[in-house]
Amino acid sequence: MSVSEFELIRRFFFDATTARDDVVLGIGDDCALLQVPPGQTLAVSIDTLVAGRHFRPDIAPDALGHKALAVNLSDLAAMGAKPAWATLALTLPDADLDWLGHFMRGFSTLAARFDVELVGGDTTRGPLSITIQVHGLLPDGQGLRRDGARAGDRVLVSGTLGEAALALRELQTGPAEAALLERLERPEPRVDLGILLRDWATAAIDVSDGLLSDLGHICDASGLGARIELARLPLTTRVKAQCSTGNWQLPLDGGDDYELVFTVASEQAVPFGKACAAAGHAAYVIGELVPTPGITLIHPDGRQSRGEAHGFDHFRR
Amino acid sequence: MSVSEFELIRRFFFDATTARDDVVLGIGDDCALLQVPPGQTLAVSIDTLVAGRHFRPDIAPDALGHKALAVNLSDLAAMGAKPAWATLALTLPDADLDWLGHFMRGFSTLAARFDVELVGGDTTRGPLSITIQVHGLLPDGQGLRRDGARAGDRVLVSGTLGEAALALRELQTGPAEAALLERLERPEPRVDLGILLRDWATAAIDVSDGLLSDLGHICDASGLGARIELARLPLTTRVKAQCSTGNWQLPLDGGDDYELVFTVASEQAVPFGKACAAAGHAAYVIGELVPTPGITLIHPDGRQSRGEAHGFDHFRR
Repeated sequence: MSVSEFELIRRFFFDATTARDDVVLGIGDDCALLQVPPGQTLAVSIDTLVAGRHFRPDIAPDALGHKALAVNLSDLAAMGAKPAWATLALTLPDADLDWLGHFMRGFSTLAARFDVELVGGDTTRGPLSITIQVHGLLPDGQGLRRDGARAGDRVLVSGTLGEAALALRELQTGPAEAALLERLERPEPRVDLGILLRDWATAAIDVSDGLLSDLGHICDASGLGARIELARLPLTTRVKAQCSTGNWQLPLDGGDDYELVFTVASEQAVPFGKACAAAGHAAYVIGELVPTPGITLIHPDGRQSRGEAHGFDHFRR
Repeated sequence: MSVSEFELIRRFFFDATTARDDVVLGIGDDCALLQVPPGQTLAVSIDTLVAGRHFRPDIAPDALGHKALAVNLSDLAAMGAKPAWATLALTLPDADLDWLGHFMRGFSTLAARFDVELVGGDTTRGPLSITIQVHGLLPDGQGLRRDGARAGDRVLVSGTLGEAALALRELQTGPAEAALLERLERPEPRVDLGILLRDWATAAIDVSDGLLSDLGHICDASGLGARIELARLPLTTRVKAQCSTGNWQLPLDGGDDYELVFTVASEQAVPFGKACAAAGHAAYVIGELVPTPGITLIHPDGRQSRGEAHGFDHFRR
């Protein structure tokens, strides 16, 4: 089938999303023109997913469309920003309209849920790869940075950890269980929780590389360490079973969970818990920050060990 | 050599650019935080360059760093936006620090010239590919859209056409002449001209796919046609020689020139020419817009033909 790039763009991208009032000019010109309201700061994040590295090549295209946007929205969530616009640079081996239609359905369904308008894009031919930039807004001065945590702050996580990594492990030897695969391929960005956290959190990050690695970034940026009580990690039965031998790799090093890990001042922990529950969000205290660098793991039997991050690193061999 | 992704990012990206006052938070957190001044509109554009498709794999890395940013800045120029920030998503087959250093030097040198701060990035392993998003600012309501042209407007171009395509043609059989290669691999984005055009142009676009294709977008968006006088096309001696047989493919269909093609009301053409010359920019009248769709080419001998775009299209086979 021969189909022009411009036809592709017209057919799939123009109608991929609903219109926002703050988009002066969307897809179809040299640039999109966007309006940031006075008193609001623009938050942007860009991420690339490469076939065979960030997703298995036979992933369902609508799951891929969902995931590619979700991992970017998760960065906005970790900053406390409200999603607004996205741009999509898509490199495809060929013009498979059926595949592209399903991909855009996954993308657009998630975009519509968070009122995200697709404002620009680029399609080109090459090895399958997706780069998305998301743009969010937040009131000036309210961004959830990594460097605002203080010693004594409680460490919290927004949901269960390790299921995405368990799905990956199962995929190495056959099909993965549906619920695990859902966790790996259709992560839920914690956008609304992130917005709530503007009023409560001293620091936040999303768990993309693994809890130890990502919490380590908060510790490093804030000049602190952390103590994590393994018995308090929120785990599903399946993941807990994997940890029963004393190997906590799945919840500590498993990436791709896209939960938020964040810190709240200790005296705020109880009122935050109430506000969080009232808003319908989950949050679990898993430890606290300490003045001494390094992450200490408190095992269920009281034994302590040093937490070493082995998170996913694209260039480590 | 084993080197972590985070080291790579630290080593090359943190110091890659100077700091701007409107960057609240740059590289190193989940998002960059940016401030758009009141009364200004944000202009964004994203573009991907894939090895073997948009550039030859053996291109000098500093030329590639320059070009990857330049083609994006050219989109801002075509909108009349002043460059502000960039994000860079880099997919590399391996962590070649020497290559990366040269790439970032090419990128940073051009970025510094236009006061562009690199505010975010992503590095991943995979087939060589570069996606950049640029962000520019312009006064509300002053964007140079494609759809503002009127019949009778003069069509102008900012510089000579066809040299990049001639370089590509020479590269098919051996090395290309240095001046041509420079035109292909180190295009100069017409940023300052774009800003000047806010006060003069009714529509603008940059020549990335070829004059006929890109002027065609202005015609389509504005519901018009155009008459182009081939004798008025600004051409170097080398390109003119290639057209002497009556084949005008290089200047009409050659992409990658990154000149601006734009329209100015006929009564404004003379004062614009003076303002343009006073600011040190080149601009050449090459024709005019007409009410009837389609592009008519007026040959030097007076003969007329229909201009059919054969610009570069990634998915046409």
